Amino acid sequence: MKILSFLSRASKAYKDYPAYSKLLVLCTLSSGGLLAYSESGPDTGTAGVETDQKLPKKKRVLVLGTGWAGTSFLKDVDATLYDVQVVSPRNYFAFTPLLPSVTCGTVEARSIVEPIRKMVKKRRGEIQFWEAECVKIDAANKKVLCQSNIDNDLLQKGEFFLEYDYLIIALGAQVNTFNTPGVAENCHFLKEVEDAQKIRRSVIDCFETAVLPGLSEDERRRNLHFVIVGGGPTGIEFAAELHDFFEGDLVKLYPTVKDLVKITVIQSGDHILNMFDGRISSFAEQKFKRDGIEVQTGCRVVSVSDKEIKMKVKSKGEVSSMPHGLVVWSTGVGTRPVVRDLMEQIGQANRHVLATDEWLRVKGCEDAYAIGDCATIDQRKIRDDISSIFKAADKNNSGTLTLEEFRDVIDDIRVRYPQVDLYLQSKHMRDVTYLLKDDQGNDRKEVDIEGFKLSLSHVDSQMKSLPATAQVAAQQGAYLSRCFNRWQQCEENPEGPLRFSGSGHHQFLPFRYKHFGQFAPLGGEQAAAELPGDWVSVGHSTQWLWYSVYASKQVSWRTRFLVVSDWTRRFIFGRDSSRI
Amino acid sequence: MKILSFLSRASKAYKDYPAYSKLLVLCTLSSGGLLAYSESGPDTGTAGVETDQKLPKKKRVLVLGTGWAGTSFLKDVDATLYDVQVVSPRNYFAFTPLLPSVTCGTVEARSIVEPIRKMVKKRRGEIQFWEAECVKIDAANKKVLCQSNIDNDLLQKGEFFLEYDYLIIALGAQVNTFNTPGVAENCHFLKEVEDAQKIRRSVIDCFETAVLPGLSEDERRRNLHFVIVGGGPTGIEFAAELHDFFEGDLVKLYPTVKDLVKITVIQSGDHILNMFDGRISSFAEQKFKRDGIEVQTGCRVVSVSDKEIKMKVKSKGEVSSMPHGLVVWSTGVGTRPVVRDLMEQIGQANRHVLATDEWLRVKGCEDAYAIGDCATIDQRKIRDDISSIFKAADKNNSGTLTLEEFRDVIDDIRVRYPQVDLYLQSKHMRDVTYLLKDDQGNDRKEVDIEGFKLSLSHVDSQMKSLPATAQVAAQQGAYLSRCFNRWQQCEENPEGPLRFSGSGHHQFLPFRYKHFGQFAPLGGEQAAAELPGDWVSVGHSTQWLWYSVYASKQVSWRTRFLVVSDWTRRFIFGRDSSRI
Repeated sequence: MKILSFLSRASKAYKDYPAYSKLLVLCTLSSGGLLAYSESGPDTGTAGVETDQKLPKKKRVLVLGTGWAGTSFLKDVDATLYDVQVVSPRNYFAFTPLLPSVTCGTVEARSIVEPIRKMVKKRRGEIQFWEAECVKIDAANKKVLCQSNIDNDLLQKGEFFLEYDYLIIALGAQVNTFNTPGVAENCHFLKEVEDAQKIRRSVIDCFETAVLPGLSEDERRRNLHFVIVGGGPTGIEFAAELHDFFEGDLVKLYPTVKDLVKITVIQSGDHILNMFDGRISSFAEQKFKRDGIEVQTGCRVVSVSDKEIKMKVKSKGEVSSMPHGLVVWSTGVGTRPVVRDLMEQIGQANRHVLATDEWLRVKGCEDAYAIGDCATIDQRKIRDDISSIFKAADKNNSGTLTLEEFRDVIDDIRVRYPQVDLYLQSKHMRDVTYLLKDDQGNDRKEVDIEGFKLSLSHVDSQMKSLPATAQVAAQQGAYLSRCFNRWQQCEENPEGPLRFSGSGHHQFLPFRYKHFGQFAPLGGEQAAAELPGDWVSVGHSTQWLWYSVYASKQVSWRTRFLVVSDWTRRFIFGRDSSRI
Repeated sequence: MKILSFLSRASKAYKDYPAYSKLLVLCTLSSGGLLAYSESGPDTGTAGVETDQKLPKKKRVLVLGTGWAGTSFLKDVDATLYDVQVVSPRNYFAFTPLLPSVTCGTVEARSIVEPIRKMVKKRRGEIQFWEAECVKIDAANKKVLCQSNIDNDLLQKGEFFLEYDYLIIALGAQVNTFNTPGVAENCHFLKEVEDAQKIRRSVIDCFETAVLPGLSEDERRRNLHFVIVGGGPTGIEFAAELHDFFEGDLVKLYPTVKDLVKITVIQSGDHILNMFDGRISSFAEQKFKRDGIEVQTGCRVVSVSDKEIKMKVKSKGEVSSMPHGLVVWSTGVGTRPVVRDLMEQIGQANRHVLATDEWLRVKGCEDAYAIGDCATIDQRKIRDDISSIFKAADKNNSGTLTLEEFRDVIDDIRVRYPQVDLYLQSKHMRDVTYLLKDDQGNDRKEVDIEGFKLSLSHVDSQMKSLPATAQVAAQQGAYLSRCFNRWQQCEENPEGPLRFSGSGHHQFLPFRYKHFGQFAPLGGEQAAAELPGDWVSVGHSTQWLWYSVYASKQVSWRTRFLVVSDWTRRFIFGRDSSRI
């Protein structure tokens, strides 16, 4: 029956979108496919660096963390140029976008991890890995205190120092409980592989407990009430996975309690998936409604106990409470203590998140870089530099800027201040010279400093910080490795834009994020996707696109084989409900 | 390279044993194959039981445990005849012979487990499962106290009683530490799936710790010393797996410590694998010597601390100590507390192991049956019944037994006392009447009681208890389910042998174990096997036989698919060393 249903599902997809689906399946199997989706990371040109190898001692690069950002850096950095070391409490890289699939056994935990040692072994040059947690960054003395996370008497406290010349902070973020009472003690999170494994066991526990003799129906009902706090992609995907797990597998194994199961999503905003296009939000909400997954929007959780979750309905201000069997907390990220401590050392104590400049250099901390969820780029405002820009552009010091003079610097401006392009896009302007038109839309031959300020006054409004996603982290890691690989080359021939407040050019181009789209699997072999070019796609075909992309994005042939084999196994045999 | 080496290995096997290997691979893939190896369990004839269904209330059968014995019973029992309930702290069945493979990631833990609910769902009739631990058997009142092993406030203490008409005790055994100090605290065991997962993580921990900065070479060496106590099949297979894991995978990832790794097997007897044929023992010892695995025979462990293991060399009486990084204790089985408690209730307090009769009925406990490792069959000695046998056979009460009279009862004797056949085999006698020959080997026409006693006096020497293996447990479970299924039928027409001390026939044939052979994988794609008919097989072809048999013996198509896919994955990509 399972096989039949798999075949019928597959054949349906073929019928609906024959050429399309075939292409997708082909791409999945041949992998690497879908060029449009492979992050076209910058060329890691290593030519012209031979001179470096003559140096007596290589600079020490210390990487903290083996998540998306750290691993992406390690994959591309030329380890023959530097003495590269990595510290992480996990000796593996985890393909985190598949974590929700691990919670219900659609994919096995081991299928989404790849040992760091194996990944770096394939690189040119040697990279040293230490399995330890970074507990303190001493920025002034350029050293880092690490502690082994293995309980072993032999190691005393298991602490050791590592010195560096360049520090790459890729520590990621931690769960943000917003200091809500009881969350840390009574909620599950979904950031690490262990979290997903724990959720999987707990879901089975809820079912096994609910069928035990001697419980009242209310108690059974409470045990089978699964609450997800946070309507972002992770929370929604978990809710969808759980629903599929229940409908597809558990309902047959626990028939006596099948009418007592309930899944609730609590979202503080007005819609779930509100970072997506409105069409996706409403599609998801309608699908969840059909599936019987309750969505409570406009609610803020005020406390969680082992039995109950209390929340406030924002519009009414009332506090209501719900009994629960399991709560998964998935509401955004916070700063790790070790990063917070560094921020205090370097004068960033007042900030929420560690700030870097556009070249990913930590502000106020020499030779330290931060990539991924642990940091945010503090994009320079064009407003603050407007006088320098005007001065640099006004070559003949006439006090006014002609169109030609403006044209000469516009490329540098666009590179240095990416908000300019975003602003042009938002106003549907095709040419940057539109900026210099007057109120009536007429061309101006020249503008003075006040006119120039006015023209660019709204540009900064388009600045926005990057989302805390794997895609951003991976691109940052790849960007940084390219900078390190081309260090000497770019020192001699800078590739960056003009320094408006200073002389010469910046050594490197600033980091620029390229958005390749985002998926939200919604269960029942349906998914939603927001793709570049304002293209929205929902339904079964999108799920096949999701399979293709996620198979092709795997970091090794081993994990690709395992993930595809897990999906096949799930199609044929369903998910396993053994409590291990 | 991996693929090439796999192909070359495979092609080698084909060349050496062309027809043979092809058959094996075919059988593996088409599975279920190798009829000779599938336990040809007794026919579960359920005809003639329709009358039972008219009874107002079905008898309650309570099964404790979901290991080999319990599951084997559940798979075959006709649940339309009984109200069957199962209690086990694990909601799955684990294919334990593959546990050593799980310790090093050759096979994944989830590939060897199958949910009990899924297994019983396929059965006729309904079987109820409770995930709980049996903490007390109240034999007098025919009830059992169970406790949920899920930590949940809702359950209060999570305790409940279950009543039964028939109790099937299939609780298995626990590790036997022989009260050696420090073993429970500092050793790993290898009985449960969780044990195997823990060992896997700990092996990686040992390597990650050993490469950390700041350790002396002695400390690194200590961390990489893996000690296995017990030279039985499990311990030896684990040692072999660990050696393969190190040689095949870890040596490349931890090159700096590759010369510091050591594996030691401590065995109290004079040889490892001493339950096998001597040829297998010496093959294993030689292979381990070549592989650099140290085997210390004739040693008894006296204590284990977190850093050291102390042992006594039996021949010299000296106590020596070795530093260690990880100790796996695998030295036989002991009785679980709940079974020990039952033994005290029913007058078996002085015994080591719970005793049953030849029909697997617990001695001194009505309506209770015990199968698998938790019990042993207390085979009735022929010596104790010799007078009754003589009396029953001497139909004309002449005081002497003629050959014809002996022939009439010999089949019943052979069924009731299986040691008779074993004795005949050991003496290479083809016909049972050889027993009645005189000292010179001449036929005797008749014997008196003294002569009869003398003839059979050595028969009991061949009695031996069954090994604590999966094969025995599975056969016992299948046997018992057949008895339950044919209860009424056999009550009316007993199928068992003559009751020598009583009248009529026994209701059922007593349980008879059929040995299908045993494997000992020795690493490096080599295995040893002891097969029926005194056939010993060692080497690469035996490993292929092992693959075939173990694939065909999987309890479901899902686990079969997973196990074969794991082996393939290992051949192509090696084992994963991520610490999850």
